[in-house]
Amino acid sequence: MLAAEGELATVAIGDVHTEAGAVIEDAHIAYRRWGVPRGDLAGKNNILLIEHALTGDSDAADWWCEAIGPGKALDTDEWCVICTNALGSCYGSTGPASEHPDGGVWGSRFPAINMRDMVHAEHAFLEALGIGRVHAIIGGSMGGARTLEWTLLYPETVDYALVLAVSARASAWQIGIQTAQITSITQDPDWHGGDYHGTGSAPNAGLAAARRIAHLTYRGELEIDERFGTAAQSGENPLGQFRADGERFAVQSYLEHQGKKLTERFDAASYVTLTEALNRHDVGRDRGGLNKALASSTVPTMIVGVDTDILYPYHQQEHLSRNLGNLLAMAKLSSPVGHDAFLVEARQMDRILRNFISLTHETPSAREVAAERGAYDI
Amino acid sequence: MLAAEGELATVAIGDVHTEAGAVIEDAHIAYRRWGVPRGDLAGKNNILLIEHALTGDSDAADWWCEAIGPGKALDTDEWCVICTNALGSCYGSTGPASEHPDGGVWGSRFPAINMRDMVHAEHAFLEALGIGRVHAIIGGSMGGARTLEWTLLYPETVDYALVLAVSARASAWQIGIQTAQITSITQDPDWHGGDYHGTGSAPNAGLAAARRIAHLTYRGELEIDERFGTAAQSGENPLGQFRADGERFAVQSYLEHQGKKLTERFDAASYVTLTEALNRHDVGRDRGGLNKALASSTVPTMIVGVDTDILYPYHQQEHLSRNLGNLLAMAKLSSPVGHDAFLVEARQMDRILRNFISLTHETPSAREVAAERGAYDI
Repeated sequence: MLAAEGELATVAIGDVHTEAGAVIEDAHIAYRRWGVPRGDLAGKNNILLIEHALTGDSDAADWWCEAIGPGKALDTDEWCVICTNALGSCYGSTGPASEHPDGGVWGSRFPAINMRDMVHAEHAFLEALGIGRVHAIIGGSMGGARTLEWTLLYPETVDYALVLAVSARASAWQIGIQTAQITSITQDPDWHGGDYHGTGSAPNAGLAAARRIAHLTYRGELEIDERFGTAAQSGENPLGQFRADGERFAVQSYLEHQGKKLTERFDAASYVTLTEALNRHDVGRDRGGLNKALASSTVPTMIVGVDTDILYPYHQQEHLSRNLGNLLAMAKLSSPVGHDAFLVEARQMDRILRNFISLTHETPSAREVAAERGAYDI
Repeated sequence: MLAAEGELATVAIGDVHTEAGAVIEDAHIAYRRWGVPRGDLAGKNNILLIEHALTGDSDAADWWCEAIGPGKALDTDEWCVICTNALGSCYGSTGPASEHPDGGVWGSRFPAINMRDMVHAEHAFLEALGIGRVHAIIGGSMGGARTLEWTLLYPETVDYALVLAVSARASAWQIGIQTAQITSITQDPDWHGGDYHGTGSAPNAGLAAARRIAHLTYRGELEIDERFGTAAQSGENPLGQFRADGERFAVQSYLEHQGKKLTERFDAASYVTLTEALNRHDVGRDRGGLNKALASSTVPTMIVGVDTDILYPYHQQEHLSRNLGNLLAMAKLSSPVGHDAFLVEARQMDRILRNFISLTHETPSAREVAAERGAYDI
């Protein structure tokens, strides 16, 4: 019933009703799976659900290859690792570039979504697979935001959680820099109000510009400076008599390359949709505020931050740790790399993931604690 | 001979030959003056030269009103305060929007300049006024970069220097984020290759977008978050079923306001010129590298940084302090405001400026030290 190991598969989840009141009819969630599920799919089992970041996909064994696989920290000989593609993305799950049930592409008909909408879709996906509970959910950045929402929306489904490099809500600075990226795309003449699919062109100049800005928030300034400093791009002279687009500093060339690479693999409307979803990230909304929402969390949750993260500064993870109702542990990645350290610092992440897995064996889940109190069956 | 107190005046400085080999013919530098010059204009006197930041102007008694004036830290009853408008700017000094000697506006004919070119122009300006030496030069951000170059290009002209919130060279991160701003302007359809002056339109959408990004680097993320958090702009709903440009978070509205305000007072081509000049900031170029250049500095220089500065992180001022050949003192502004703290934290700046002035009275200048050694007359 599960997809073949490592193969992309898609599950129909019916209609998704967004928190804001829109409907995404006949939605699908794409996923991949590694390892064999063991135990009770509706109870105690060996399933780990991985949540990817903004432009990630379900191929976690690729983008997190040091973390996932036989003998790795998330050992696929022991664990069944499942990674979904987020609702709104463009790697198989329903998003603005997907076909609309009424014909054509969703385009501008695709509504704004938030982290909760994405988690509801993933919950429906697990239900469709007959999975009623998972051992742990693990995610960084946008994946961390979804993981946090999982622990608050469906605590009975999640035994443990690991939340990396994210905050309890979007900060005003994040909304500012993210909106700059959205505007860069929507002001591209090829945006066509979001209905450029099928026109033969796409707002790729805007998407590349957005990515260049974003990349500077994903990487620590120390790391970027160590790599490029004020060096000129090979064969170009950025110090000439007149400024010229083709005469660049090395860092410009690097950022342009990052931007171009993204346009070759990612849909601009999905980028807008997911970035807007990050703008709307706020675990406190309609839950009596941030700290009350966090305090109500019962799922044992480990929080990890990066000391040089510009986008989600470490104080935001300290805030999560101080306020979460059931803090499993806290760890800091020490790295010049910045936000992306959770993807890049393989050795440190290996220790953190192994520690997390071991803590989940040593610590009773919320459900086990409740069972001891006679509240419900385990 | 000097301009009337507080009045804008312009001084012809002849041709400026840029380091890259271009010529700006018949250049002018605009300035304002407060207080009466005393002492020997070619020697020991009471002149303080103020260097403004990127979009600043010569009206330092306005933008630094808490610092400059009778009884203030830079007491105009005691000191003669002079503030130039930078070469390339649009407040009276020659820049891309100025008239070209051959007719029309400079536009794309205005060459790329760097901090050294700007300082050479200011030196010619002082010479034109018959001023051979100043007691101190004081500047923050782009003004700090010019002040640093002053101490290396014309150490015999500067008795003391105060350098605020800047680095010894552009970092790769700064070049990246600054280039994003330049590109935002040059990709605006109204840019016309830099020759939009006189077309009746201007790349103001691009300029506003550049400013929105820049503003997020001028302000600390804590301060912006304290002010706006995830609040909606009054009367708008940023959480609706669909993303809409007119339904904004409060921080978006704030940033749009900042962007629009700049377009009403600043020329886009000047913004490109000065931002490019910041990209080219590197005191180490052609001086045997950064640390050798800093070590060669003889002018007693005080360095100030801001603990929450995203744009010029504090470690960059620590680097200056560690390497400068003649460090007068080091101070840190402690503020949630970020980079702009040197303009905003009036109380702390008052203490720093008073301390600086007093240190200049207590500490021999490089010229005085040399005179003691019999090297040249004082």
